[in-house]
Amino acid sequence: MGGKKKKEKHQGPVAKLPKGFRDVFAEQALARQHMIGVICSVYGRFGFEPLETSSLEYLDALGKYLPEADQPDGGVFALRDDDEQWISLRYDLTAPLARVIAEHRLLPRPFRRYQVGPVWRREKKPGPGRFREFLQCDFDTVGAGSMAADAEACAVLTTALTELGLSTDQFVVRVNNRKLLNGVLEILGIDDSVLRLQVLRSIDKLEDDGFDGVAAVLGEGRADKTGQFNRGLGLDGDMISRILDFLRCGESTRTATCAAVADFVGKSEIGNEGVGELREIDGLLVAMNLPDDVVKFDPSVVRGLEYYTGPVFEVELTFDVEVNGKIRKFGSVCGGGRYDSLIERFTGQKVAATGASIGVDRLQRALESLQLVPPPPMGPVVVTVMEQQRLTDYQKMVDELRKAGIRAELYLGSSGFKAQMKYADRRAAPAVVIAGSDEFSAGQVTLKDMRRGAELAAEIDDNEQWRKEQPAQASVARAELVAAVQQIVDRDRATS
Amino acid sequence: MGGKKKKEKHQGPVAKLPKGFRDVFAEQALARQHMIGVICSVYGRFGFEPLETSSLEYLDALGKYLPEADQPDGGVFALRDDDEQWISLRYDLTAPLARVIAEHRLLPRPFRRYQVGPVWRREKKPGPGRFREFLQCDFDTVGAGSMAADAEACAVLTTALTELGLSTDQFVVRVNNRKLLNGVLEILGIDDSVLRLQVLRSIDKLEDDGFDGVAAVLGEGRADKTGQFNRGLGLDGDMISRILDFLRCGESTRTATCAAVADFVGKSEIGNEGVGELREIDGLLVAMNLPDDVVKFDPSVVRGLEYYTGPVFEVELTFDVEVNGKIRKFGSVCGGGRYDSLIERFTGQKVAATGASIGVDRLQRALESLQLVPPPPMGPVVVTVMEQQRLTDYQKMVDELRKAGIRAELYLGSSGFKAQMKYADRRAAPAVVIAGSDEFSAGQVTLKDMRRGAELAAEIDDNEQWRKEQPAQASVARAELVAAVQQIVDRDRATS
Repeated sequence: MGGKKKKEKHQGPVAKLPKGFRDVFAEQALARQHMIGVICSVYGRFGFEPLETSSLEYLDALGKYLPEADQPDGGVFALRDDDEQWISLRYDLTAPLARVIAEHRLLPRPFRRYQVGPVWRREKKPGPGRFREFLQCDFDTVGAGSMAADAEACAVLTTALTELGLSTDQFVVRVNNRKLLNGVLEILGIDDSVLRLQVLRSIDKLEDDGFDGVAAVLGEGRADKTGQFNRGLGLDGDMISRILDFLRCGESTRTATCAAVADFVGKSEIGNEGVGELREIDGLLVAMNLPDDVVKFDPSVVRGLEYYTGPVFEVELTFDVEVNGKIRKFGSVCGGGRYDSLIERFTGQKVAATGASIGVDRLQRALESLQLVPPPPMGPVVVTVMEQQRLTDYQKMVDELRKAGIRAELYLGSSGFKAQMKYADRRAAPAVVIAGSDEFSAGQVTLKDMRRGAELAAEIDDNEQWRKEQPAQASVARAELVAAVQQIVDRDRATS
Repeated sequence: MGGKKKKEKHQGPVAKLPKGFRDVFAEQALARQHMIGVICSVYGRFGFEPLETSSLEYLDALGKYLPEADQPDGGVFALRDDDEQWISLRYDLTAPLARVIAEHRLLPRPFRRYQVGPVWRREKKPGPGRFREFLQCDFDTVGAGSMAADAEACAVLTTALTELGLSTDQFVVRVNNRKLLNGVLEILGIDDSVLRLQVLRSIDKLEDDGFDGVAAVLGEGRADKTGQFNRGLGLDGDMISRILDFLRCGESTRTATCAAVADFVGKSEIGNEGVGELREIDGLLVAMNLPDDVVKFDPSVVRGLEYYTGPVFEVELTFDVEVNGKIRKFGSVCGGGRYDSLIERFTGQKVAATGASIGVDRLQRALESLQLVPPPPMGPVVVTVMEQQRLTDYQKMVDELRKAGIRAELYLGSSGFKAQMKYADRRAAPAVVIAGSDEFSAGQVTLKDMRRGAELAAEIDDNEQWRKEQPAQASVARAELVAAVQQIVDRDRATS
């Protein structure tokens, strides 16, 4: 508390965040609130209700379903509770939902909920755009085996993105079914569940690794970036090309893709189940007027999470974006799928469930790059403080403005007039209220219309003339304060 | 994944939350969203901007300011990051703000932000109403030494509570100044800072312990609930009665209380500073028309957090509530104060700052007990599934309703008609759409007005008559579906 000597170097904690974390300031926070509002209103319209689960869960209740789960610490932030049991910050909103369903057996079925909240992943290498805490916006339908729930998920995602301002040529919802790949692997005689999961995870890296990279990992292996050779899964060449051909067999219409994948799965029962499900989804998508190029069937989509059991979907943004000087597709911003076995872990009984998640942060960056973010709301009217001993008078002014519903603030710092005007500018104040002894004795206040001021400043070159005339500034009777400010605010709002 | 034998007992994780955590379901979540919306709109009108900081911070950046900080684990959820440094879930929103201010030196000053978010405290004994994760709704002004910032905090709290529906006789904002007690302790010759903090924490328990309890803790000590004797702080009787007299010296007007406390602090410089600040706040409160019985000066308010340096405030709800069969006052739901030294920890330079926090969960319980929670929004229109092979037709109906902006859902479960009607009832559906083969061949749909149905069911006793006439049910042409449902929904909304 006491004053340290100024020349002594200050010894204290360093003011910074752990790596992979960040702060979100006003402009971005407001844009995010707006986005979440739009998304939740769509979720609500489709019949979903909000649910807010706890951030911390027992680690074993969350389960090891992360793509990083094969790493020793499983990619989560966990600690021991007072009872010595491990608790962990949730890494997604799906595992907690499964726990809720298993715990609260009297919930209505189908149970349709949405949830917005942060999730935490202990990324080894967080970086720009790869945070260890990020927001997800999920919706799920539990207790519905019907493919209509999956088809609806595609409609929810399409509607949400459209209402956020994206046009249907800027994104594509890609749909696949895990059962198809299982069918292909069955036909190829790959039955071991661990190997299947490894194949799946290799394919999940298709976007980064390309077909050659995936082929190498499925086969003999390849060197990583540091030059170290990593052994592959050891599949033979025929198997590999069969798998790659399957991944590439998507056609431009959903019907044609269904026919193509049917060829690949042959007589595999699980594979044919998958084809049947896709066909059913197609029919429902047609009923909702979702065209082939907006919701597309794509056999190469797998999604990294282990718990998916049927249809999976992801939304890819199809426009280009510059990342570190390189032009590339924006990529995936939403994903989801059916996970009919996740709740069974707790109860021993299968409960059908499907849903999807919108990655709020990535999508927000996409909307920013397309300039689809709404303009920030108007700043507060700033009442300046010309004479400290008149503070209660200024406070009265700002109080009147607020009571009339006008966003306003009293300048609370200790700087002079010039700094106060700069502050008002920085706060994007539509108007500034000025009252010195002249105004007080005349029973007036001076109002500065900040927007008009900025416009005129661009027109008038003569600094001298400007100072004399102060064209965007006018005095009004003190009693007219609220009405006059309201006028400026209304005009500002109407033209912005 | 595979089917376990039914008779085998299922072995899996237990579906439950760690103690002290909880889930918030739709009705409560919606009420909470509404509350937060009202509160944030007030914060915004007063000129505050949103800020969202990270949930995890370096433990040393948060500092040990919790009332529980004298316990070994400091009352927080902490773990070691990959770089071996301790990181912790934030326990409030003030310490992270101090870190932000110290880290981002180019933010405008004054910096006025609000933040809504969960905080986590590792309570040893969580219980009903005492959670280890709870929501706070904070606003703060940084870089403002002016008492106007503190007076405004009182106005913000009053406005927020009023706009949430509380009347001004249901709450009181109690204001004090830490400098007063420091002045009293100075006069009494209690200079040791550790002892001062202990005195402060004893007084903070006044509401639970009563004056006798506080006196015992300040003096020789007393036995706790288990009968174990805890030594007190060892102050002598005169000191104790002087302190207790000070705590009780509040008068019914702010002016009178200022005069009373001035007597107690005598010539203490710090004490007189405190009196001067209170007098300045009083003038500003008068300017904002905040009466003496709504914002009250009360020398017994201390607030538990160590970092407060000047004015402190808390909001007490003054109506009674039943807790475990006992009638008691609802108690404190908001608190705050000035913390001019918190940012100095990082930078070595004093930065004036003040703010307050609304405890969302406690306040929500208060609003519930006063029935001030808005009615839940209307449930979705439910389109029932009478014939599975017609699924795409039903999907088309629900799609049309949604595209007209009507909240609607297709029944996605696998149960029969009766269960579907029960489901619709549980979802509070305003209308149910029914179409079987009769309807399809006639080009019609049947609509059931659920609210009208419930009203008529109360009027008509004759079950037989009811079944025959189905008075709240009518068939319309398929093309009229949207318009007819809209009519029911509008009528429902108008009368609710």
